[in-house]
Amino acid sequence: MSVFHGQADLGGTGNGPPVSRQEFDELFEAVRTWGRWAPADRGAWNRVTPDHVRRATARVRSGTVVPLALPWNTRSGPDNRKPALHHMTDLGDVEAPEPSTHKDFIAADYHGKGITHLDALCHVAYRGQLYDDRTASEVVDAAGARFGAVSALGPLVTTGVLLDLPTVLGIGWLEPGQAVHAKDIIAAEKALDVTIGEGDAVLLRSGHVRRRRELGAWDPDTASAGFHVDAVPLLAERGIALLGGDGDSDVRPSPVDGVHSPVHALAMTAMGVPLLDNLDLEALSAATAEAGRYEFLLVVAPLNIPGGTGSPVNPVAVL
Amino acid sequence: MSVFHGQADLGGTGNGPPVSRQEFDELFEAVRTWGRWAPADRGAWNRVTPDHVRRATARVRSGTVVPLALPWNTRSGPDNRKPALHHMTDLGDVEAPEPSTHKDFIAADYHGKGITHLDALCHVAYRGQLYDDRTASEVVDAAGARFGAVSALGPLVTTGVLLDLPTVLGIGWLEPGQAVHAKDIIAAEKALDVTIGEGDAVLLRSGHVRRRRELGAWDPDTASAGFHVDAVPLLAERGIALLGGDGDSDVRPSPVDGVHSPVHALAMTAMGVPLLDNLDLEALSAATAEAGRYEFLLVVAPLNIPGGTGSPVNPVAVL
Amino acid sequence: MSVFHGQADLGGTGNGPPVSRQEFDELFEAVRTWGRWAPADRGAWNRVTPDHVRRATARVRSGTVVPLALPWNTRSGPDNRKPALHHMTDLGDVEAPEPSTHKDFIAADYHGKGITHLDALCHVAYRGQLYDDRTASEVVDAAGARFGAVSALGPLVTTGVLLDLPTVLGIGWLEPGQAVHAKDIIAAEKALDVTIGEGDAVLLRSGHVRRRRELGAWDPDTASAGFHVDAVPLLAERGIALLGGDGDSDVRPSPVDGVHSPVHALAMTAMGVPLLDNLDLEALSAATAEAGRYEFLLVVAPLNIPGGTGSPVNPVAVL
Amino acid sequence: MSVFHGQADLGGTGNGPPVSRQEFDELFEAVRTWGRWAPADRGAWNRVTPDHVRRATARVRSGTVVPLALPWNTRSGPDNRKPALHHMTDLGDVEAPEPSTHKDFIAADYHGKGITHLDALCHVAYRGQLYDDRTASEVVDAAGARFGAVSALGPLVTTGVLLDLPTVLGIGWLEPGQAVHAKDIIAAEKALDVTIGEGDAVLLRSGHVRRRRELGAWDPDTASAGFHVDAVPLLAERGIALLGGDGDSDVRPSPVDGVHSPVHALAMTAMGVPLLDNLDLEALSAATAEAGRYEFLLVVAPLNIPGGTGSPVNPVAVL
Repeated sequence: MSVFHGQADLGGTGNGPPVSRQEFDELFEAVRTWGRWAPADRGAWNRVTPDHVRRATARVRSGTVVPLALPWNTRSGPDNRKPALHHMTDLGDVEAPEPSTHKDFIAADYHGKGITHLDALCHVAYRGQLYDDRTASEVVDAAGARFGAVSALGPLVTTGVLLDLPTVLGIGWLEPGQAVHAKDIIAAEKALDVTIGEGDAVLLRSGHVRRRRELGAWDPDTASAGFHVDAVPLLAERGIALLGGDGDSDVRPSPVDGVHSPVHALAMTAMGVPLLDNLDLEALSAATAEAGRYEFLLVVAPLNIPGGTGSPVNPVAVL
Repeated sequence: MSVFHGQADLGGTGNGPPVSRQEFDELFEAVRTWGRWAPADRGAWNRVTPDHVRRATARVRSGTVVPLALPWNTRSGPDNRKPALHHMTDLGDVEAPEPSTHKDFIAADYHGKGITHLDALCHVAYRGQLYDDRTASEVVDAAGARFGAVSALGPLVTTGVLLDLPTVLGIGWLEPGQAVHAKDIIAAEKALDVTIGEGDAVLLRSGHVRRRRELGAWDPDTASAGFHVDAVPLLAERGIALLGGDGDSDVRPSPVDGVHSPVHALAMTAMGVPLLDNLDLEALSAATAEAGRYEFLLVVAPLNIPGGTGSPVNPVAVL
Repeated sequence: MSVFHGQADLGGTGNGPPVSRQEFDELFEAVRTWGRWAPADRGAWNRVTPDHVRRATARVRSGTVVPLALPWNTRSGPDNRKPALHHMTDLGDVEAPEPSTHKDFIAADYHGKGITHLDALCHVAYRGQLYDDRTASEVVDAAGARFGAVSALGPLVTTGVLLDLPTVLGIGWLEPGQAVHAKDIIAAEKALDVTIGEGDAVLLRSGHVRRRRELGAWDPDTASAGFHVDAVPLLAERGIALLGGDGDSDVRPSPVDGVHSPVHALAMTAMGVPLLDNLDLEALSAATAEAGRYEFLLVVAPLNIPGGTGSPVNPVAVL
Repeated sequence: MSVFHGQADLGGTGNGPPVSRQEFDELFEAVRTWGRWAPADRGAWNRVTPDHVRRATARVRSGTVVPLALPWNTRSGPDNRKPALHHMTDLGDVEAPEPSTHKDFIAADYHGKGITHLDALCHVAYRGQLYDDRTASEVVDAAGARFGAVSALGPLVTTGVLLDLPTVLGIGWLEPGQAVHAKDIIAAEKALDVTIGEGDAVLLRSGHVRRRRELGAWDPDTASAGFHVDAVPLLAERGIALLGGDGDSDVRPSPVDGVHSPVHALAMTAMGVPLLDNLDLEALSAATAEAGRYEFLLVVAPLNIPGGTGSPVNPVAVL
């Protein structure tokens, strides 16, 4: 894996090479799957047939269950500008016993960097169009989305593949700003003895959460490790259903001129591949290393929010 | 199933027989599992070993995936007094493109009858004590619960068993106020050719959601179908891990003198069995009928809320 | 006051006469004040000069202070479909003493019938245009309003005039659906010995709150007492700054074909007159009756919400 | 004003002299007014009789109206750890026209440093007791406060006095950490030709907001200008009704051993004087300087929140 042979290489921002807007638009066309599926709202999740589900559940060996969600984060910080809310609304003193009850209220403006969440296909539009050529302004309003809502996705049960880059490289984490390229994916597949197949969920571990725990929080909009757009054609070719990671899949700063979140636009808007952001992959890294297997059953069960642009989730890996 | 031989029987409130407080307290002692597990917070989920997980995933046959959550309900009504919130916070006009983004905010005081949710073990205290003899006032405060929080539960992957009473009885639904007894569970097991085993999740379908769709909403605090406390010893004996349903498991009005939610207290506080409330079991009923199998892989993945009393969820059945 | 000579008259819906859309549009043109003021956002509040403020404060006689807000209503009901939230977030157990602190969280989607609030000029658009001919879609987006926001209004200190119709009529309340016409305003002025002048705030008491207390809540969208549009030219001629009431100023059902809230559109969109909805005028009715004076100092101090469409308020009358 | 003769003096933390816990407790006893008033919930607002109201309104000269609230702050920052929420819930696309409507939702956990708010008497307890010797744990629970709630206060109409220290001293602002003492109050009264009288509201301008605008935000918990406890006996002697400022009245760090907010405890818990935190006094400073008068009519109209610990407010000064 040539880009990663030492700390020296990782010291640079490493988000390049730069990509022009025209090159990006050509890439967008190249990976576009508009018109392919019905219902279009489910996009690439249509690839996950009952056969895939059966194969995914058949991968379970040890029965180890690993949750992938960060803790609900109610403290503001550089990576949590819209902290989630958690209020106790009954401490056994509001409703009459017996029994007495404790209740709470949760709230979140969950897109951002602080909360583990799934992005539905209505989340991102490029040049005004959502996936499948739906005009965003016609199908999304203050009442919610009439196309591409999370309620149209439902749950996903499929094979997950962990691209555990720090493990492959024998380092603690990728530095923020480090791009992951197609060749790195191929090298990781080889090193981890996995093959990304059609309908699979690809989870990229950059070591973001470990770095945050050791060094403290930073602003991921300024710098975070993630895919360079040159990795996307490979993922498209493999026919993935879901892309996720401990960042938000995009390397930042963006290498694409005038496009702040190019992997978001390619995955969701062109390919119909929902994203899973801000995962905690540390326990999964340990569990996969122990098992010596980097593929597993993955279940993602978004809340059933009609018109919603996504959902906080707690994805579950079963090894 | 003697209590259900006709519409005449179902016409009554059918929530009896009445149970005295002393009888209830004896029952509470009889099914109590305090001190049995570590970590105690996970209660009966400790029964779900990796072996159970493997067996549960091995039950998958068709690969059919069925979500069990009601839609996020933002409209107030007799069964939704604290409506959930869903606000669009970006319509592609707040943050600069490209791409443009749509974002939203969700919020819920989710205990109640309107939202599909999991109850964690800190939710219910009887005589001031939570499960495992923890004094509620010492471990729950305005900052959250330090014992029995949903973050201590994590996800559950186990075998689900659907007790589809209306299907067994050939009726549309149980009338609100109708109690389900131990003998009805046994009869349903026989009719549906399932056996509730240790570590299983038992889901009771009363037809609540179908009735609501056909006849409109009512106040389930006044009347709902659910278990009579006399069904609990059987569930305890079987060693279930989770109890859920399209109601909240308790028949209402409560047959127990001075205890408004006796099944809650027995399941959660005595037995350490979390509850899953307000499921939509209609699609699962159809899928199990079609498959001719009433057991399946069940995945429940609560949000990772430190100190939380539960979580909205979208449980997933895989047949 | 011819429309009100007896219970028989009030027994009908009394919201007429019907008004055609063309008649309404002519009325809209007739009372329009677009282009008259700078800053246009403050609309008719520009009428309230320092002189008016001085005269208003000089009206104080007894020093009696009367708040006009309903209690923050957290219970859903037919007139409170989006209940306000009130959560205790610290019960002296979250932050370290000494001293210990109690804190809370409040929230509201306050437009509607449950919360006393001020409507800013961006709240209502007619045929796509806000007050002063601003195109709504150009100045309001998911980030808020760039024209006509409540933050542009600031507080109002002026003379308030209570049109206490039930007192004039010697009845408990106007029945829901009863319209108030220009002649009724004139009769009330005479009976109460007040004259509505330029820059004044007109508060219409229909007895809504008293009726709700005695008979229980109803859905005010279905029927509420309020102004017929034929009262608006008189209010326009008088040059009022603010219109308020214990309803939302509009008689409902609307007498205007195809316009559900015609007084809202005339007052706010045509005349630049903010509205004050859902006041509790019962204590003010008693205080004015005791004082024998129906004009007073009125202070309305909306929260300073940039881009906001209004604000919950607690208006204060000083007699 | 000896403590303030130059930048050198202001360069130190200046929060002293240190005060022992015993001295503080003696001070607490010395200024205590428990048992003096009914209703006790209104505390020192009972001093504001109709006579005071009349005198306050009679102070109006120019009719200039000055709002004192900071903008509703939805961005997290060092002085806004729990940002307020503001969501547009209707952009004219949710409810049917005509007219079309724009609506929004506001929310805040408003205690803290980011939002202008009033503290009700239930907000602060010292040694477990609220004002008037009420045991906090007996009167405050998750449903709210049954004593000392903001709904018991209602609005305040009184004489406001601006202690504009930076103007007196000819400086831009007091440095964070600078204490204001009794002698400084007396010197300010002399310099500004005002006398704090019974029932008055005292507003301390430290220049906090100007400093924030010029230098950026900082964490006021670490350092802010405010009253030293040695100023409190003078305020008690004068019989003030309300204490407010552009900080939260307490100098921070606290000079009192083991008491993080000693002025809060003395004012609210001992004296029954509500506090008004985080005012924007810049416009008022300019207006009072122009008028050459530092007293004015002040109206504070908290939202009518039953059981609430305070309220966001937009206090209004009328000169």
